Amino acid sequence: MRIGFLGGTGIEGKGLALRFAASGGSVVLGSRSEERAQAAAREYNELLGSPLIRGMVNREMLAASEIVFLTVPYEHAVPAIESCRSDFSNGQILVDVTVPMVFREGRAEYVEQEAGSNAELLAKYVPKHVPLVAAFKTIPAHILAEREIELNCDIFVCGDIKEAREKVMEAARMIPTLRPLDAGLLRMARTLERMTVLAVNLNRRYKKKGARFRIEGF
Amino acid sequence: MRIGFLGGTGIEGKGLALRFAASGGSVVLGSRSEERAQAAAREYNELLGSPLIRGMVNREMLAASEIVFLTVPYEHAVPAIESCRSDFSNGQILVDVTVPMVFREGRAEYVEQEAGSNAELLAKYVPKHVPLVAAFKTIPAHILAEREIELNCDIFVCGDIKEAREKVMEAARMIPTLRPLDAGLLRMARTLERMTVLAVNLNRRYKKKGARFRIEGF
Repeated sequence: MRIGFLGGTGIEGKGLALRFAASGGSVVLGSRSEERAQAAAREYNELLGSPLIRGMVNREMLAASEIVFLTVPYEHAVPAIESCRSDFSNGQILVDVTVPMVFREGRAEYVEQEAGSNAELLAKYVPKHVPLVAAFKTIPAHILAEREIELNCDIFVCGDIKEAREKVMEAARMIPTLRPLDAGLLRMARTLERMTVLAVNLNRRYKKKGARFRIEGF
Repeated sequence: MRIGFLGGTGIEGKGLALRFAASGGSVVLGSRSEERAQAAAREYNELLGSPLIRGMVNREMLAASEIVFLTVPYEHAVPAIESCRSDFSNGQILVDVTVPMVFREGRAEYVEQEAGSNAELLAKYVPKHVPLVAAFKTIPAHILAEREIELNCDIFVCGDIKEAREKVMEAARMIPTLRPLDAGLLRMARTLERMTVLAVNLNRRYKKKGARFRIEGF
């Protein structure tokens, strides 16, 4: 599977890129700067011990990818989409993993969104022919990035186009011990984004790092 | 521990009442009608095989309870509190387990609350000297009520008074294989209420019944 990362040089995309590449995915990091994309690719390839990941400018990354992960801090998500709106192609799927969250008085807080969730806000900016899927929101970036951690958890995939959700779930199944679950329409992102804040606060309160969700009884 | 149920004759309270009573809690079902409360107590005691649960009018139940579970359908929660506002005593804790949810087009939907969550709405009606805690929201009533099911999951406890959260967690620990986690301030109920809708929809989509949450990495 050809997997791209829009804004793929930060912590948000690192773990996913590493895990997809290690699982046989064809991974391309995109950036506004080709140099930065290639530097990140080199760094990740060293961790992988093999030149599996390539770096490109976002436009080229988009031309090379079936599934594109939007992996920028939440407040940069709209400009990131706008900057390459015309470069998306038909059939491509955009996956939003962002969580609008701030830290205040020692705890994480959800940044309430007028659209209901950041995913629903982004839906207003994504080209009509590109299905938007929200996924991987509830699993912290640093856990994905620590590849020695067995994930052993569920992720929740939502979006208004069933086939797009299924494609993203197929991609997620490439990653060992990670189970994707179909959470339905895009507005379920309201729940998923908030769950991340819960997990972060549980980590802080209990002095742990790895809080993530599993559905029991399944 | 003396545990009361405000509106304790419906499915919302049944499982909790049975499980607390079976675990040694002193359980009182409250209702507007003493007759109905006693009938429910008789029914539950038959299931328990022992006369552990009592039924009383809400006023008497309140006089007998340290922790009071508000176990009515969400849209009856405000009138239920208003009907016995003056009967709460100092030091008593009210636990809100309600989830504002409707079914539409074959799926569960969260009923958006102007206050943010039903728990935050109720906070406006609860007497100032009674700490309000939101808990047990993410575990479906029917799973609690099927006592042969090992819960093997986490519940999340939130509320603005730490001591009240701790007391409710202490109560929750009476129930085997259930782990209470401190989720912080009452506004985290926005997350917990929505998580229930996610669980219900996962059940429907995957034709299961028991979806409930566990935190992995803890």
